[in-house]
Amino acid sequence: MENEMEFEGYSCPIPIQPTDTIVLGHGSGGSLSHDLVSRLFLPEMGKAAPRALDDSATFMIGMEKVALTTDSHVVSPLFFPGGDIGKLAVCGTVNDLAMVGAEPIALTCGFIIEEGLPFDILKRVVASMREAAVEAGVFLAAGDTKVVQKGNADKLFINTAGLGRVKPGIEISGTNAREGDVLILSGPIGDHGITVLSAREGLDFETDLQSDVAPLNHLVAAMITAGEVHVLRDPTRGGLATALNEIANQSQKTIENFEQAIPIRPQVRAACEMLGFDPLYVANEGRLVAFVAESDSNKILSEMKKSPYGERATVIGRVTGTVPQVRLKTIIGGTRLIDMLAGEMLPRIC
Amino acid sequence: MENEMEFEGYSCPIPIQPTDTIVLGHGSGGSLSHDLVSRLFLPEMGKAAPRALDDSATFMIGMEKVALTTDSHVVSPLFFPGGDIGKLAVCGTVNDLAMVGAEPIALTCGFIIEEGLPFDILKRVVASMREAAVEAGVFLAAGDTKVVQKGNADKLFINTAGLGRVKPGIEISGTNAREGDVLILSGPIGDHGITVLSAREGLDFETDLQSDVAPLNHLVAAMITAGEVHVLRDPTRGGLATALNEIANQSQKTIENFEQAIPIRPQVRAACEMLGFDPLYVANEGRLVAFVAESDSNKILSEMKKSPYGERATVIGRVTGTVPQVRLKTIIGGTRLIDMLAGEMLPRIC
Repeated sequence: MENEMEFEGYSCPIPIQPTDTIVLGHGSGGSLSHDLVSRLFLPEMGKAAPRALDDSATFMIGMEKVALTTDSHVVSPLFFPGGDIGKLAVCGTVNDLAMVGAEPIALTCGFIIEEGLPFDILKRVVASMREAAVEAGVFLAAGDTKVVQKGNADKLFINTAGLGRVKPGIEISGTNAREGDVLILSGPIGDHGITVLSAREGLDFETDLQSDVAPLNHLVAAMITAGEVHVLRDPTRGGLATALNEIANQSQKTIENFEQAIPIRPQVRAACEMLGFDPLYVANEGRLVAFVAESDSNKILSEMKKSPYGERATVIGRVTGTVPQVRLKTIIGGTRLIDMLAGEMLPRIC
Repeated sequence: MENEMEFEGYSCPIPIQPTDTIVLGHGSGGSLSHDLVSRLFLPEMGKAAPRALDDSATFMIGMEKVALTTDSHVVSPLFFPGGDIGKLAVCGTVNDLAMVGAEPIALTCGFIIEEGLPFDILKRVVASMREAAVEAGVFLAAGDTKVVQKGNADKLFINTAGLGRVKPGIEISGTNAREGDVLILSGPIGDHGITVLSAREGLDFETDLQSDVAPLNHLVAAMITAGEVHVLRDPTRGGLATALNEIANQSQKTIENFEQAIPIRPQVRAACEMLGFDPLYVANEGRLVAFVAESDSNKILSEMKKSPYGERATVIGRVTGTVPQVRLKTIIGGTRLIDMLAGEMLPRIC
């Protein structure tokens, strides 16, 4: 906070222009996606509240508070080290439910299949969905299959929607960050994005790197039991930088991170340097960032470390003010303003 | 029932072979789809109960009975007389909820967009979704957008999932047909399939024909209030013949229909004759068939006629026995055994 540049009047010198056609960046999860959502979907759906940007919608059915979410998955290739489109589809939706503190209950899955897909591929994908669903403790309640002519889709797309239950008293939302909150990241970032890219392009730097794709609901349940959790988000498309920007905007808070504290595997760092990527923008599918009450942060952190998906959990920052910004204290001592992902870095990463 | 051929030992002389690759027919909603579901999805999802074939899954969340369903929509072209992919996506999911007697509450929508799609197309589709959602009284709770490279999808695919609430005492399922039940069809069949085909191929016989696509939940609510409804189904892909076969199998009942009673518009009949289609297999998106207690059938029928979507509702048949078969008393006095749709008649009809 001391002796740093003043960013409050900052704005991007090259604003993104609205386009007449959909470009890949509209599916990036970054600022073009947000532009599409706020220009088109939210007004048409009659919603503009900040909570509309949470990972799941929450509402009452009778006496029960439920959470509902959806994700389509178009990852290419279908199989990659550590996972496949099926595991990704189940975990992505389970995690979106977990990020509002909901216990995932049931999923639906909609398959769009390109004519000619080998039956065995589909069988492997469905088996993988089942395995992930069993681990998460959700059931696959309903499904649908559409087949399109060869050339009208790329092999296989899977949509999953998820329904969960939010226990009374749980109130987790991107709008709930408070000054003083401690930021905990559950593990190293960038593994998923770099793994998928390596598998797609046949790059050799993958070494033993695997996607982090995993269902995080049990980890979240343990965290909620351990202490006061205000915000949860899984930094998928757009990466950690985009997730933190969303929260900064939803909560109207300043988020300050320490570059040195953010865990990044050497292979990921090397691949990013080679390709000119910033790991802060690379997608994760089994990581979460939590904003927790300072007084409970140690308890929550030690609880997280007991989970296979939180072993390397660590504090990466703090909520320090009310100007909606994400700042990074760099290793060399400066402060960098971290914006949302602008265009598209890695299409079809999930 | 009198003086007719004995079909009980009947089996198709050319059984469908399991294939190694996915073919268009696997998405037809007919017997290849059922084969896929029973060979692959149901075992992997740990379900084999007849109810797994209902339009929506129903289960308890706390004290509330809910219904959950999903459908992906890949219709081509995106716009056709009477509707578009957006209206279709909302109505299809609303209707799947209504078919188990649920009041639709919330939808999710997942868009898979081909790079280069004009923004205006998307805008029109989303506006149309909103309009259908308003009519049905559901809200769009959550959405997701993925963009794939040009050539990796055909313009726009939409998945919708739906959540509804089933009031205590409502028990509607394909397993509940009873001997003596009266079959009511809500209106003429084949309008949707023939309209989409005409629009796609630029055929001229469309005249003033429009898709029947409509949300049927208010019609269903009126029917349930009027009397005892055992089974509801919307004859979408695979048409009326396939829907009735599903119910015959789920309930282990014989369903007997009167060809003369089944309303078919002259344009649809003419188009079917020209193209060699059987209207019984052509898709509908705003029709339902109901199996109701005989004693309540008149009350239910007259209630249906008050709805714009049930004006031409009519009795088309009966449940007559316990051999799972669908029979059609033809106009010329014979009896025809009606099977499920076998291959694929009209791909990408919804």
